[in-house]
Amino acid sequence: MFEAAQLGRKVDRKTFAAREPELREALLDAQARLAEAGFSVVVVMAGAEGSGKGEAVNMLVNWLDARRVETHALGSPSEEERERAEYFRFWRLLPGKGRIGIFFGSWYTRPISQHSLGELSEAGMEDSLRRIAEFEQMLEAEGVLLVKLWLHITKKQQKKRFNQLERSPDTAWRVTRTDWRYHKTYEQFVNSASRALRRTDTGQSPWHIIEAWDARYCHLTVAETLLEAVERRLSTPVPPKEPALPPPVALPVNVLSELDLGLKLKRQEYRKAVKEHQLRIGRKARKLKDRRRSMVLVFEGTDAAGKGGAIRRLTQALDARYYKVVQIAAPSDEELARPYLWRFWRNLPRWGHIAIFDRSWYGRVLVERLEGYCSSRDWQRAYGEINAFEEQLVLSGTAVLKFWLTTSKDEQLRRFQDRETLGFKRYKITGEDWRNREKWDAYQAAACEMIERTSSELAPWTLVEAEDKYFARVKVLQTVEHWLNAGL
Amino acid sequence: MFEAAQLGRKVDRKTFAAREPELREALLDAQARLAEAGFSVVVVMAGAEGSGKGEAVNMLVNWLDARRVETHALGSPSEEERERAEYFRFWRLLPGKGRIGIFFGSWYTRPISQHSLGELSEAGMEDSLRRIAEFEQMLEAEGVLLVKLWLHITKKQQKKRFNQLERSPDTAWRVTRTDWRYHKTYEQFVNSASRALRRTDTGQSPWHIIEAWDARYCHLTVAETLLEAVERRLSTPVPPKEPALPPPVALPVNVLSELDLGLKLKRQEYRKAVKEHQLRIGRKARKLKDRRRSMVLVFEGTDAAGKGGAIRRLTQALDARYYKVVQIAAPSDEELARPYLWRFWRNLPRWGHIAIFDRSWYGRVLVERLEGYCSSRDWQRAYGEINAFEEQLVLSGTAVLKFWLTTSKDEQLRRFQDRETLGFKRYKITGEDWRNREKWDAYQAAACEMIERTSSELAPWTLVEAEDKYFARVKVLQTVEHWLNAGL
Repeated sequence: MFEAAQLGRKVDRKTFAAREPELREALLDAQARLAEAGFSVVVVMAGAEGSGKGEAVNMLVNWLDARRVETHALGSPSEEERERAEYFRFWRLLPGKGRIGIFFGSWYTRPISQHSLGELSEAGMEDSLRRIAEFEQMLEAEGVLLVKLWLHITKKQQKKRFNQLERSPDTAWRVTRTDWRYHKTYEQFVNSASRALRRTDTGQSPWHIIEAWDARYCHLTVAETLLEAVERRLSTPVPPKEPALPPPVALPVNVLSELDLGLKLKRQEYRKAVKEHQLRIGRKARKLKDRRRSMVLVFEGTDAAGKGGAIRRLTQALDARYYKVVQIAAPSDEELARPYLWRFWRNLPRWGHIAIFDRSWYGRVLVERLEGYCSSRDWQRAYGEINAFEEQLVLSGTAVLKFWLTTSKDEQLRRFQDRETLGFKRYKITGEDWRNREKWDAYQAAACEMIERTSSELAPWTLVEAEDKYFARVKVLQTVEHWLNAGL
Repeated sequence: MFEAAQLGRKVDRKTFAAREPELREALLDAQARLAEAGFSVVVVMAGAEGSGKGEAVNMLVNWLDARRVETHALGSPSEEERERAEYFRFWRLLPGKGRIGIFFGSWYTRPISQHSLGELSEAGMEDSLRRIAEFEQMLEAEGVLLVKLWLHITKKQQKKRFNQLERSPDTAWRVTRTDWRYHKTYEQFVNSASRALRRTDTGQSPWHIIEAWDARYCHLTVAETLLEAVERRLSTPVPPKEPALPPPVALPVNVLSELDLGLKLKRQEYRKAVKEHQLRIGRKARKLKDRRRSMVLVFEGTDAAGKGGAIRRLTQALDARYYKVVQIAAPSDEELARPYLWRFWRNLPRWGHIAIFDRSWYGRVLVERLEGYCSSRDWQRAYGEINAFEEQLVLSGTAVLKFWLTTSKDEQLRRFQDRETLGFKRYKITGEDWRNREKWDAYQAAACEMIERTSSELAPWTLVEAEDKYFARVKVLQTVEHWLNAGL
């Protein structure tokens, strides 16, 4: 993998001086055009210790307009980061459209270094690489331009560099004991790295392996690589939006049609059950923090199926300090400027906490799909992205429970009419509700497809027969309690 | 202070049951109207340990629409919070317009408890109370409705409550050793609290002291108090925008007119000075982290005075991992929904980091004042708010250095014309630049007033003669280096 980066390439002072001004000019120009384009740039700056990543980033940022660049040096995660899934720290730092984010210390750092030190098994490494591939694929699909740079030096050069640094009191602090430890395992590091690079080298986001011993050659190449990538992307015509697909049609017999909407509870049974479940849920939920666990609850369903009421019965059991209800409505402009899932990542709970999503990322394959708010390519890839997202949550200790509440079409009509007569502002029935109702069948079909494609053992859907509110609420409570019993 | 909350008020089960439904109804209704009003609600829930704050908040959130409420239980600060000024954690959690934020654990917690335990001096307490008053005044002026609730129990009741809790295995965990320690110093706690309450009890944001022994009385009163405050505010007509004041006129002789714009550096001197300063700044800046310090640099000045160039000479000296340049342009909608300074607080640096603001909070008393983007009341109060903000930064270990760069009006014209001929996109001269130029005198006058009112020993302005770019850049570097030498 790295042979081509051991050729001893150099740039002399004169050549560098001759090339620098126009390169800087071109970078600033590209950046100004980027500011008005609809995409962001993520630069991954990776490589062995001593390869001069820091110097390369400093040079790059000096040449760029620093006001539109964000540099993120990620060392060990903070406690706020440790209490969430691994990629939380990367997600929270994704740049908005028109901006450049430079990551050194990235999603590659942990897997490569741990694997090279024997702290990550083969299977663990494979998992990590698959996760990286999924993440980068998502970024690309969201329009992010990904520029991956690997600065390469040989083992000999690394030793020489460390020695040089140690000789000057000004730089000696930069060489740590860990660095020498890495030096001893240089071969393993290169092996782990080359595997990671090979596995994540794609047509759209190739790795650029840059010979780093000669700083002038390295810096010029880094800048030119970034420039070329940005310019190529700027001159790529935006593909036309593909035509919308016809609305989905559900099979006559499907998971939703087979639900027994006749299921009911008597008021007295209901009251008793709610009380008992709430008591036990409250007790159990307190243990989340000690067990380093958190919960994400997703509520989706047909309009007026009673999501709000079910959520309320659940929150009654919980301590307000440890849960939040996140209502998903129109995204803010900061959210719109970033990949779709950003707005959900930023609302993930810490250990001991519960986030309850009233509508969720599933909007992508429901309302956004059916109303044409996103392209068909977008909602089609969403299934995979959502599965990867939820998998990561679950593996990091967050339980993901998803509820689909449904009534019959007739019951919905009754509830709409009730709400209209009630006339409370908070139950406002809007034109949109009526329009959605007209597409009942398409929504059912989309929901069936969604349930089928995103129900896993890790993050299962619970279908809730919600014709009877009592029954629905108790089923939700039961399910949560069951997970708390089994999962903790 | 608390005598009126020791009268043994009670509500029996029947009265409570009779009052509850309409109260909940009214709360939901008020909340729905709030969602469309242009203000947010901040509830401070305070009181002695064992007074049932948690229960009261749980009840309140259950009665409200939890999707529009955010509950924040603030325990000890996280490391990300500890590395910034004390109020960072409160600022970052301020709710957006239309929403309710409930704080338990608030800006009162630390001062009252530390003072009662003798860990905070009288002077420290006074400082804390003054800071609270400033913060709350700012919130009010920004349109936030502040509802401050204090749940009161007597020492005897506290003991009884702790004993009750300890008897049941379900609640015993809630009584900690610290609680009993607080119980022993109950009198001191009440003294410190009553002083804090007295000092922060204002007409606009009075304290509501609520007798808390009887849970039903307490919960009803909490809900009623909140409801009443929100309803009163909803029915208060929005005051008409006061007429804009005439543009300011500068004194013929002022701090800016007296600057010697003839100051110059030769190219060779400049190059040498830049190199030397950069070297020393780079070395020193590395020490920030160890000393638990951070820096905030503010760049303001006339258009085309060379802020960008000066910033670039500075960042060249720094490691890209530890600085960020924050360009202040139009606020995002999330920023618009919160008090003015929120967008600056969220960009404050951690220990070891430097935030460079290219334009800043001073926009309020410059462009916003002169273009009428805010009311005259808003920019008039901004001086005090800014001073309080910067004072807090400095006292928490953040150096605040502010630069005003200025050229003559003629030089500005030359630079505008140069930029127009250059025609690079990034130097676009817009109509706005020309319009601002027409108001040159008013901007000068506003700047003079700003400098006079916000230059303190803690956070001084450095006036930079920028007719000659070389001179200006070196003066900026000199000033930064000087602070690094003296301040670290």
